[in-house]
Amino acid sequence: MAATGTHFLCYSPTFTKTLNHSLNQNPFFKIPTLSLKTTQKLSLSLKAILSPNPAKTLNQNTSFQHCFTKSSDGFLYCEGLKVQEVMDSVEKRPFYLYSKPQITRNFEAYNQALEGLSSIIGYAIKANNNLKILEHLRQLGCGAVLVSGNELRLALHAGFDPTKCIFNGNGKLLEDLVLAAEAGVFVNVDSEFDLENIVAAARIAGKKVNVLLRINPDVDPQVHPYVATGNKNSKFGIRNEKLQWFLDAVKAHPNELKLVGAHCHLGSTITKVDIFRDAAVLMVNYIDEIRAQGFEVDYLNIGGGLGIDYYHAGAILPTPRDLIDTVRELVLSRNLKLIIEPGRSLIANTCCLVNRVTGVKTNGTKNFVVIDGSMAELIRPSLYDAYQHIELVSPAPPDAETSTFDVVGPVCESADFLGKDRELPTPAKVEEDGSVTKIRHGETFGDHLRFFEGL
Amino acid sequence: MAATGTHFLCYSPTFTKTLNHSLNQNPFFKIPTLSLKTTQKLSLSLKAILSPNPAKTLNQNTSFQHCFTKSSDGFLYCEGLKVQEVMDSVEKRPFYLYSKPQITRNFEAYNQALEGLSSIIGYAIKANNNLKILEHLRQLGCGAVLVSGNELRLALHAGFDPTKCIFNGNGKLLEDLVLAAEAGVFVNVDSEFDLENIVAAARIAGKKVNVLLRINPDVDPQVHPYVATGNKNSKFGIRNEKLQWFLDAVKAHPNELKLVGAHCHLGSTITKVDIFRDAAVLMVNYIDEIRAQGFEVDYLNIGGGLGIDYYHAGAILPTPRDLIDTVRELVLSRNLKLIIEPGRSLIANTCCLVNRVTGVKTNGTKNFVVIDGSMAELIRPSLYDAYQHIELVSPAPPDAETSTFDVVGPVCESADFLGKDRELPTPAKVEEDGSVTKIRHGETFGDHLRFFEGL
Repeated sequence: MAATGTHFLCYSPTFTKTLNHSLNQNPFFKIPTLSLKTTQKLSLSLKAILSPNPAKTLNQNTSFQHCFTKSSDGFLYCEGLKVQEVMDSVEKRPFYLYSKPQITRNFEAYNQALEGLSSIIGYAIKANNNLKILEHLRQLGCGAVLVSGNELRLALHAGFDPTKCIFNGNGKLLEDLVLAAEAGVFVNVDSEFDLENIVAAARIAGKKVNVLLRINPDVDPQVHPYVATGNKNSKFGIRNEKLQWFLDAVKAHPNELKLVGAHCHLGSTITKVDIFRDAAVLMVNYIDEIRAQGFEVDYLNIGGGLGIDYYHAGAILPTPRDLIDTVRELVLSRNLKLIIEPGRSLIANTCCLVNRVTGVKTNGTKNFVVIDGSMAELIRPSLYDAYQHIELVSPAPPDAETSTFDVVGPVCESADFLGKDRELPTPAKVEEDGSVTKIRHGETFGDHLRFFEGL
Repeated sequence: MAATGTHFLCYSPTFTKTLNHSLNQNPFFKIPTLSLKTTQKLSLSLKAILSPNPAKTLNQNTSFQHCFTKSSDGFLYCEGLKVQEVMDSVEKRPFYLYSKPQITRNFEAYNQALEGLSSIIGYAIKANNNLKILEHLRQLGCGAVLVSGNELRLALHAGFDPTKCIFNGNGKLLEDLVLAAEAGVFVNVDSEFDLENIVAAARIAGKKVNVLLRINPDVDPQVHPYVATGNKNSKFGIRNEKLQWFLDAVKAHPNELKLVGAHCHLGSTITKVDIFRDAAVLMVNYIDEIRAQGFEVDYLNIGGGLGIDYYHAGAILPTPRDLIDTVRELVLSRNLKLIIEPGRSLIANTCCLVNRVTGVKTNGTKNFVVIDGSMAELIRPSLYDAYQHIELVSPAPPDAETSTFDVVGPVCESADFLGKDRELPTPAKVEEDGSVTKIRHGETFGDHLRFFEGL
């Protein structure tokens, strides 16, 4: 478990910015407390971690393995580096720790799965908008999927090739569409008013826009309703019965719009790739229909949404190759270029949120581990009732009693929990004691005050 | 409806900072799109507003009336100012609009209700941490309730009297407790480890800390579980059967701790004041017990949590006077000083989130109004399934069809709704066209990039 040649990205603020319009990953923001070196040694704080545990994972696909491993010494490691040592070296806590090699492996898994196909991998920036991560993915050859004007600005700033960028969204603003037209990115048409705005943007920019039609195939992704997006009553996309209206509208605007393909997006956290094939079959039929009217469309965009192993219980989940193989023949049969829009499956298993235990308490029949992280850094448990795997960074003492704990943060609200009813050894006190790169400054109190300067 | 002498606070960013550890009000953050003056006039945007509607409110208490009124001309007004005109003058949208006079009236309602009692009104900063609002409340004589070190720093920065400030929280960090000890604010003891940290902080600061014991009275506030905080299995506070342990611990640290009172907090959005009396009866009994052991405790802190009229359907809700009157005799009978911690009831009815309609669409059987605001500015509907009143800023055209709409934002997730199944006139197109003060700068794209400078 050598650390040579590996790189770590240490996300060292707790302020996760949503430039984007999505909240899948780290939507909440909190100004971290400033560490006070003189008092830390007096602290009774214990260490714990919220992280993936690869120990029980049976998935044989090397690319998508968890990169955090509990070693026989009882410590958690990330690519050979002791997480405890990272904790002791960072300036602020809690923090997110990322494995750069794992990001590379995840991208390569998609890249290899797509061999033999003409394709664009568009990373869904909403999954994580860290500029350093974006620059890394861009260097690997990745494109970008954008759902706001600021995500578009960020992608351009990170150097993404505009012809590998796709602008999505049900509420795109005219000024952002103008920027998209000027930059020359693909734009997915979401509704009648969206098409009208794209036409207006093309005129303002003086450029023809390459558009795809986002069609709702009405395939049930079998996920939480909050992350299902391709149903017939979704706020996203258009219904197939309206297809002709859109085709006529595109024909009526030959100077503003060039129809290059069709797009669908079923949802997120999808664990059954069959539904991608079901959707692709429908989509390819629409493309046949569109081509029959004389449009030269080249692109099939099947969206993103591949799920990950949240439970760490050895589930065999589909790999990027499984996903691509379900649609490969269809894509080849129509000589199409495939666009995919992975987000979560590129970034989620590369990181963990590292927290310090503030204390342990009992009320009534409930035991609590109180940590310095909270729903402000990780909203998924509160918002979706989602499961996040939790384990200790450092070994529990031999006599540590295992109990059932709620793992909760300091936010003044009962919704602030990271895990409920978790069997954990009572966290041990540990003593205060790599190749880690900081990839984000922590927000400061001064940053907040700046918003009131001169007012 | 004269506008003379009124003042408006215009909250003109969509980046709501959570310095605090609570998420009741505006917990999400979004970088607003930069307005592009050259394209705005070409926009087909319609106007709508999310705001309180006072028209149907029967509540006769003048202090807590809604300050937004729909006039006979079909326009929404705030203290005599047309909201539509504010929309046209602000630099960024969406934005929050506040009535400064309403904030004053709300504070005065509490102040008058407390006449004849020795008391502290501690505004719960977690409800809204805008510096300008804090300064206004401080000038009125308000104290502050804090749930993080940065909220404490903010209160001190806003000039609050530390002897009117109370530091709460189930996960207070040692370094923040040191700051609290140095500043001389009250600290509510939440658990055994919290007491241990307060003792350590007092030693580091070289100052004795005035503490109250937060006791869970186990009174059911009959609210959403996420905002119920005083139950026996809550992560907050201590159970009464542990009271003696805490009293002994205070006695054992005479140089570090001075016990000055007892605290409870039942929850938020409470609409039945009887439960405050039920809790106060229990709390006064604990205070008798504490005094019998020789402690000179002066303060009863009954927390906050008074609900507001979210539904705008004419509900008669308890006023500050109703709340105080339920505990007045008990407080006087023991010669106690009363601390209250209102947040939502001081600020919520003073503001509205003003949005622009991006477009209207229909999918399957669903009609959607798509606006530029989202769950990123207002998480309550997604997180709590909470109801937010929605109405149009400007009159619908005479022939506007009334339909059932979901009001949704641009966030790339189906959880992004502000209201479901609302009967609304189809929003009209309006033409582009006071005494409004900006109280917050909008966050810019450059602000985001600063987090990566030099990395």
